[in-house]
Amino acid sequence: MELKLLVVTNDQLDIETLAKHISEMDPYVDFFIIREKSKTIREQIHLLDQVIKAGVSKEKLIINDRVDLALVLGISKVQLPAHGLDVQEVENHFPSLQIGKSIHSLQEALTVMSVQADWLLYGHIFPTNCKAGLPARGLHTLRSIVEAISIDVYAIGGIKPEHVQVLSDIGVKGLAVMSTIFDAPHPAGKAKEYYQACQRSVIFNKE
Amino acid sequence: MELKLLVVTNDQLDIETLAKHISEMDPYVDFFIIREKSKTIREQIHLLDQVIKAGVSKEKLIINDRVDLALVLGISKVQLPAHGLDVQEVENHFPSLQIGKSIHSLQEALTVMSVQADWLLYGHIFPTNCKAGLPARGLHTLRSIVEAISIDVYAIGGIKPEHVQVLSDIGVKGLAVMSTIFDAPHPAGKAKEYYQACQRSVIFNKE
Repeated sequence: MELKLLVVTNDQLDIETLAKHISEMDPYVDFFIIREKSKTIREQIHLLDQVIKAGVSKEKLIINDRVDLALVLGISKVQLPAHGLDVQEVENHFPSLQIGKSIHSLQEALTVMSVQADWLLYGHIFPTNCKAGLPARGLHTLRSIVEAISIDVYAIGGIKPEHVQVLSDIGVKGLAVMSTIFDAPHPAGKAKEYYQACQRSVIFNKE
Repeated sequence: MELKLLVVTNDQLDIETLAKHISEMDPYVDFFIIREKSKTIREQIHLLDQVIKAGVSKEKLIINDRVDLALVLGISKVQLPAHGLDVQEVENHFPSLQIGKSIHSLQEALTVMSVQADWLLYGHIFPTNCKAGLPARGLHTLRSIVEAISIDVYAIGGIKPEHVQVLSDIGVKGLAVMSTIFDAPHPAGKAKEYYQACQRSVIFNKE
């Protein structure tokens, strides 16, 4: 199975522009993390309404941080930041949710596994201005995490389409991208590049 | 019955200092709105733990905006900002909560009444540098709101201890204060001044 592509919004676009980009890249993206911290809740609701109205499935949407927003809108997936609510607390109170947790170390990964997060997001894999194609320090820890735990791991941070194969070899479930897509002149075109790289990848079967 | 005193945190103090101030002013304050937008959720949880450990009743705590945080911590009161979640949506999903809504006009007050908020917070009553003791433009709308709706109204914005009597005459349930208390050299002492003014006040009985 090919790697999943997860796009994280960059909190820098107005609602109409962002909704348009999300809608355009929808065919190439498995999940969107809606992470618009500087927008009010009203604005985030308006954005999500636009996105859903444009035909993007609710199943593809992951709400960053705001569990209450997800619950109120009937969105079943949340991404908890490293300094956000505890996975276990959210799990206890809202058992219907699927919960991702953002982590930055193997130690945090082990904690997250013990509380049964549904997936984790580890990064940053590559420094911002890393030399494309060369292994960077994040890969070593990423490999340790994938080997140590049994839940799905997504990699984030400076990932370019040419990194997809090495990530696939390590055995991640998918990759998450923000800046490289939203900084591109044509975000949907850039998302398609990642999509195609994912299509070419084959998940390394640990079993 | 005397006016209630509601203190809103100012999002400018470190956790230890704020917890200490809250604990010291606890005897004079009916409710605290915890509004620490620039702190992470982890930090807000740490603050609330400190405050509760210091003996402040959970019943006095109102969580601003973050309904999820309130639910996870077992705190039963939330304050929804004007641009926050809808009262009706929160009411539908989390019927155990008591919900306050912040509003800025009579029109918003009528909307809030129709969805059965438990209280509303109207402001700003006084401009920041108003001449103390003189009627300011906010009082007119405040009076209209109190006359028009049947739920409890709290006034906020530039209120000094010497304004308490006029607010009482209008028939508000209470007043909310942030800067005047937290900018004072001794916040708890300033809270006590408001408390004493509230003690002297008598609620205007509309019935």
